[in-house]
Amino acid sequence: MKISLQWTVGFTQEAKSLPENFIPAVVPGAVQPDWASAKGWPAIEYQANYPVRYEDRNVPIAVDYEWMEDVYWLYRTKLDFISTIAGQRLYFVCGGVDYRFQVHLNGQIIYDQEGMFTPFEIDLTDRAQPGDILEVLVFPVPKMYHNPIDEKQSNQSCKPAFSYGWDFHPRLIPLGIWQETYLETRPALHFRSVEVFYELSQKLDQANLCLEIITSQIGLGRLKWKILDRAGQVILEKENTPEQFQQCFSGSIESPDLWWPNGQGEPVLYTSIVELYDGAGTLLDNRMSRVGFRKIRLVPHAQSWNDPDNAGFPNSRNKPPITLEINGRVIFAKGSNWVGPDMFPGRITTDTYRLLLQAAYDANFNMLRCWGGAPVQKEGFFDLCDELGIMIWQEFPLACGFYEGTPAYLRVLDQESRSIIRRLRSHASVVLWCGGNELFNNWSCMTDQDLALRLLDRNCFELDPHRPYIMTSPLSGWAHGGYQFRLHNGNEVFQYFPKAHNTAYTEFGVPGIAGIKLLERIIPAEDLFPPRPGTYWQARHAFHAWNGSPDSWLELWCIEHYYGMPATLEQLVEWSQWLQSEGLKFVFEEARRQKPVCSMALNWCFNEPWPNAANNSLLSWPAEPKPSLKAVSDALRPVLASARIPQFSWVPGETFTADLYMLNDSPAAIAEGRVDATLRVANQDLLLLSWEIPGTPANTNLPGPTLRYSLPDLPAGRITLCLRVKDHPDWNSEYNYLILGK
Amino acid sequence: MKISLQWTVGFTQEAKSLPENFIPAVVPGAVQPDWASAKGWPAIEYQANYPVRYEDRNVPIAVDYEWMEDVYWLYRTKLDFISTIAGQRLYFVCGGVDYRFQVHLNGQIIYDQEGMFTPFEIDLTDRAQPGDILEVLVFPVPKMYHNPIDEKQSNQSCKPAFSYGWDFHPRLIPLGIWQETYLETRPALHFRSVEVFYELSQKLDQANLCLEIITSQIGLGRLKWKILDRAGQVILEKENTPEQFQQCFSGSIESPDLWWPNGQGEPVLYTSIVELYDGAGTLLDNRMSRVGFRKIRLVPHAQSWNDPDNAGFPNSRNKPPITLEINGRVIFAKGSNWVGPDMFPGRITTDTYRLLLQAAYDANFNMLRCWGGAPVQKEGFFDLCDELGIMIWQEFPLACGFYEGTPAYLRVLDQESRSIIRRLRSHASVVLWCGGNELFNNWSCMTDQDLALRLLDRNCFELDPHRPYIMTSPLSGWAHGGYQFRLHNGNEVFQYFPKAHNTAYTEFGVPGIAGIKLLERIIPAEDLFPPRPGTYWQARHAFHAWNGSPDSWLELWCIEHYYGMPATLEQLVEWSQWLQSEGLKFVFEEARRQKPVCSMALNWCFNEPWPNAANNSLLSWPAEPKPSLKAVSDALRPVLASARIPQFSWVPGETFTADLYMLNDSPAAIAEGRVDATLRVANQDLLLLSWEIPGTPANTNLPGPTLRYSLPDLPAGRITLCLRVKDHPDWNSEYNYLILGK
Repeated sequence: MKISLQWTVGFTQEAKSLPENFIPAVVPGAVQPDWASAKGWPAIEYQANYPVRYEDRNVPIAVDYEWMEDVYWLYRTKLDFISTIAGQRLYFVCGGVDYRFQVHLNGQIIYDQEGMFTPFEIDLTDRAQPGDILEVLVFPVPKMYHNPIDEKQSNQSCKPAFSYGWDFHPRLIPLGIWQETYLETRPALHFRSVEVFYELSQKLDQANLCLEIITSQIGLGRLKWKILDRAGQVILEKENTPEQFQQCFSGSIESPDLWWPNGQGEPVLYTSIVELYDGAGTLLDNRMSRVGFRKIRLVPHAQSWNDPDNAGFPNSRNKPPITLEINGRVIFAKGSNWVGPDMFPGRITTDTYRLLLQAAYDANFNMLRCWGGAPVQKEGFFDLCDELGIMIWQEFPLACGFYEGTPAYLRVLDQESRSIIRRLRSHASVVLWCGGNELFNNWSCMTDQDLALRLLDRNCFELDPHRPYIMTSPLSGWAHGGYQFRLHNGNEVFQYFPKAHNTAYTEFGVPGIAGIKLLERIIPAEDLFPPRPGTYWQARHAFHAWNGSPDSWLELWCIEHYYGMPATLEQLVEWSQWLQSEGLKFVFEEARRQKPVCSMALNWCFNEPWPNAANNSLLSWPAEPKPSLKAVSDALRPVLASARIPQFSWVPGETFTADLYMLNDSPAAIAEGRVDATLRVANQDLLLLSWEIPGTPANTNLPGPTLRYSLPDLPAGRITLCLRVKDHPDWNSEYNYLILGK
Repeated sequence: MKISLQWTVGFTQEAKSLPENFIPAVVPGAVQPDWASAKGWPAIEYQANYPVRYEDRNVPIAVDYEWMEDVYWLYRTKLDFISTIAGQRLYFVCGGVDYRFQVHLNGQIIYDQEGMFTPFEIDLTDRAQPGDILEVLVFPVPKMYHNPIDEKQSNQSCKPAFSYGWDFHPRLIPLGIWQETYLETRPALHFRSVEVFYELSQKLDQANLCLEIITSQIGLGRLKWKILDRAGQVILEKENTPEQFQQCFSGSIESPDLWWPNGQGEPVLYTSIVELYDGAGTLLDNRMSRVGFRKIRLVPHAQSWNDPDNAGFPNSRNKPPITLEINGRVIFAKGSNWVGPDMFPGRITTDTYRLLLQAAYDANFNMLRCWGGAPVQKEGFFDLCDELGIMIWQEFPLACGFYEGTPAYLRVLDQESRSIIRRLRSHASVVLWCGGNELFNNWSCMTDQDLALRLLDRNCFELDPHRPYIMTSPLSGWAHGGYQFRLHNGNEVFQYFPKAHNTAYTEFGVPGIAGIKLLERIIPAEDLFPPRPGTYWQARHAFHAWNGSPDSWLELWCIEHYYGMPATLEQLVEWSQWLQSEGLKFVFEEARRQKPVCSMALNWCFNEPWPNAANNSLLSWPAEPKPSLKAVSDALRPVLASARIPQFSWVPGETFTADLYMLNDSPAAIAEGRVDATLRVANQDLLLLSWEIPGTPANTNLPGPTLRYSLPDLPAGRITLCLRVKDHPDWNSEYNYLILGK
């Protein structure tokens, strides 16, 4: 039986002093929103409520969160329970405290831990009485150094780096009890752990299961184990008497329905129910979990062993594999980079995830890369991904830094990574472990020899050997970037991606401005137009957000290059979103056109942890789609007609060209058909070409003709290439490009 | 006290039957030479004594070794010892049996193991009586399959692959007791293991030692530990009473003299002596070992973080590091690939190694790559490398194959790799672990995800975390090959290496014919000249040895291209060795010229396990230098004048060019000086250029001028470029190239 607890919280300057005041605490949550709420501060997400102190001193500080990083926070609760029945045990159960903490019972330290990802239980039986005081003392934010105030302060801890300040995340570092936390009474004999492992036979026609249980006592009780299929039918039933603390029971399922990613089949999940009875047949404990049967391999791409980049002598190696093979089928992985959906992970619920993940599913995603700068998400996230068939690339909490393998760091990384692996390994959706983000680039300077990354490989190998592990992204042959529609050297995505021939594009982005309604909520009216540095546009990352570039992510210079100066906010937003939509559509389709050498495309990024005025994300916080989401969704349809157009803006007299393709990522062949290509210029539709498409096998693209059209004298404005597929309007595509005045 | 054993051996078709005959066995050794010796067969290394059956049926089979692969071999000894004194223990101690075996005592199985690299001890106290029969039953050669008969039969075992047949190794797969094997009586209290670990302080000015001992009993005895410096002075002395089976004792040494590789300083070794006494002060056991203090790191090369190969977007990772930093100093690693020096590792003694390693030292080597196709060498090898300052890159026994991570294979790989790591980790000379040879190339098709390689990383990380581990060679940015003076496309080493810009050349070769005296011993007189397929030239790998190429390693087509048809054996040998010498000299110097992007050059290969008629090795079996050894030795001098000459053969009228360099790998700066470049043509020395060299820092090269000389009408023959360094004749260089008739 679970007993919820009521918490208060207060801060102190020293671990051993008591807070002067306690305020109500929301658990799970974080101390910052508790404090803001107690003080009546407005919601931090909107208007001028953001502590901009670190980033731009031109913007006044409305409220101050900075000091909260460096104090101790004491959570306190009175144990309000009825004395336990003889034979029952009483536990304090906590899913996670962020970050370093102690647990005190009546002022005595009874537990001590560093690390937010390791849950814990404390047996309070015979130790705590009703009315006793239980406290959780949370230490200040871990920092490698005090100055400069930057994200690399996190580099000797397992605290996610992005809350220390990032181009899309303000500096605001949560602390507090962030996972479910309660008292629980349990019978003396209960489960300490229940886990279902399986191996699929070579032909995938048999699942050999292993139920591993750990019980609190031995030699007592009776175990019942059932597996139910999707229809709720029991297809496996076992009974046994556990004889050791830790024991395995085996079972097998013939011809299991497999778990498939979105677009490839159904993400079939079975249900496992395990019950523990005492000698009299009374149910003591039970656990329910879900199992999706699938086999994952990371395999070299189709041409890897005869790579023209590595021909002749002297001869190097093939590129490290990044092609996913699921259930024996090579799959093009497509989707986005996922960041934390809220600055305070403690506030996140399954509902927070639901809207976002449904949007990812609807956008034809089959993969999300859970980026190492953000916390590992809560259970609800993985449950939903299991259900939706969204594959998860999960990183450990390392990003863009040099995480030196000191003994103290390796100790906490060992503990935290083991906890993360144990928690997630039963999820069908999780297909890949990764050490962290961009660790082998010159802003991080780690290498394959770093002990942190070897430790992570060791832990993955030991606890989860059949799930691939990569040290970081990118590795050789894959790429990150660019993050702009037009680079400062004048290259557009339309030129620099077709020249690349990477095996995976695991980050790339085109920024877009948020919708007007959101802008009005986060930027004071007087700042709204025109946008300029030193206003809330800057605090909201439209200026100086990234790499010292003066107007990222607004990219005003780029918008002006194509459209001229916007006269209104509406115009500015429309143009920015247009560029984001066409830019991302192009890159996703180009990556797919480069199949099978390329087998993955994940844009940066899907969502954001708070509302930015401009950002690479497809949705604004909390889950407001930008128009680019629809564009990406179109580009990721299983089957579509596609065009490679070599530049965005055209002038009359130029020859407009487009390389036509049929793209097919689906497990079904395409029948013969026809694609009509028309150009819509000045409100006229010109049929330029009809392409008779032959039948095309499953999961295979079909290159087509190159269309050429000498542009007549046209007024400046939109030019639209329409590809219409006979009898398949759902495969049609449109590309909105630009005619510039001569 | 050690008691040696007298062994006999015989074969049977089945594990459970007994041999019909027993013959005398040499232990350590192998069953094949025992059999050959009993039958009076001539030495397999010479003349027509080689079983060519698998490779070329045109050559008659003189003797037959093939059947020996597939039978069981039973070693037998009578335990000839005096009954043990009360309190003494009796052990059967064995350093290794090749490959799968059981130990029987009076017909009972008392031990069972797969794997030649794991030593074992069996406590026979109270179990064996004088006169008892002890047997070692060796199973047939492990084979993944029976056909085809090739080297990949070894790919589910830890048996070194090269003995299954390689371009320089005949098919002959040793079996038997290959390491020291004896009875030993010990006091009840004795050491089970003694090992000295250390960490150097950041500034390398303090060594913090940890003596880890495991004793057979606890709570008894007294331990004395001494560390002696090079002069034999005791610089650390500790006494203690072990209180646990496994215990660590610490100590520290201030300002230790460091161990340096050849050419960089002295390979200083300290001596550790550990003694165990009983309560009465009687010495029970003692162990002596040596410690060399040095810090190894594998670091990115100087330009790695700003690599022009990875500029702009989309952006990938830096190249994986292969630059060795020893004691904080980046070192250019130079040397060779080491293969087994004998087909039968059991016959190898420290004397086998001594000549070869002295030759490597004299050739200015600071590194040998112990290639994974050959067995891990015996202790004497590593002891000598410790003393000579030769760094060792040690591979696990995987080469050129797909070693699938089946449970059975992973089990034996786990055991064997742990044994190898434990045995070698105390050696100062061992600087790098490597999973195996060319596993990420299309003749192997393994990837970073293969469980075998992840297991090896795990074991290295756990047992030896501060020594770098790489999965295979080459990795991205490094290269293997070419193996020919002139490729079939006409490219010479003089062209294809300057075009490469790899970070390490970890294999490259130019073949050369063996000396005439050796040829006369291995090829019957009637076959000697001209060399042709179907004779012993072929059996000795001069034809069809590699990649299906008809005359590798003889490369007759290449010799004829430059010199025409040889008229005599003497001419043939001279020309082949000339090409090998100039080819290798060029590649080594070119790799050094590419410093600091390039930081390693290791030619294929140093030695050979039996006498080949033609091979890429610098020495013929057992330790006969070819002229190329001197050429390589010259190219690897710490300091030398060097020339990049763009082609080997010239015709009158062409402009002869040479890019001049001073190469400095030494830790000392070069003072100002002068290099005179003269061309010796038609017995005349023409001074073409004097280059005034400025002072040059330690470990740094100096690019110089390009010499140009329009070649006059000259007779065909040798043309020699001589670089003479004023006051430093030891830095002079000579390059012998060729004038072709017009």
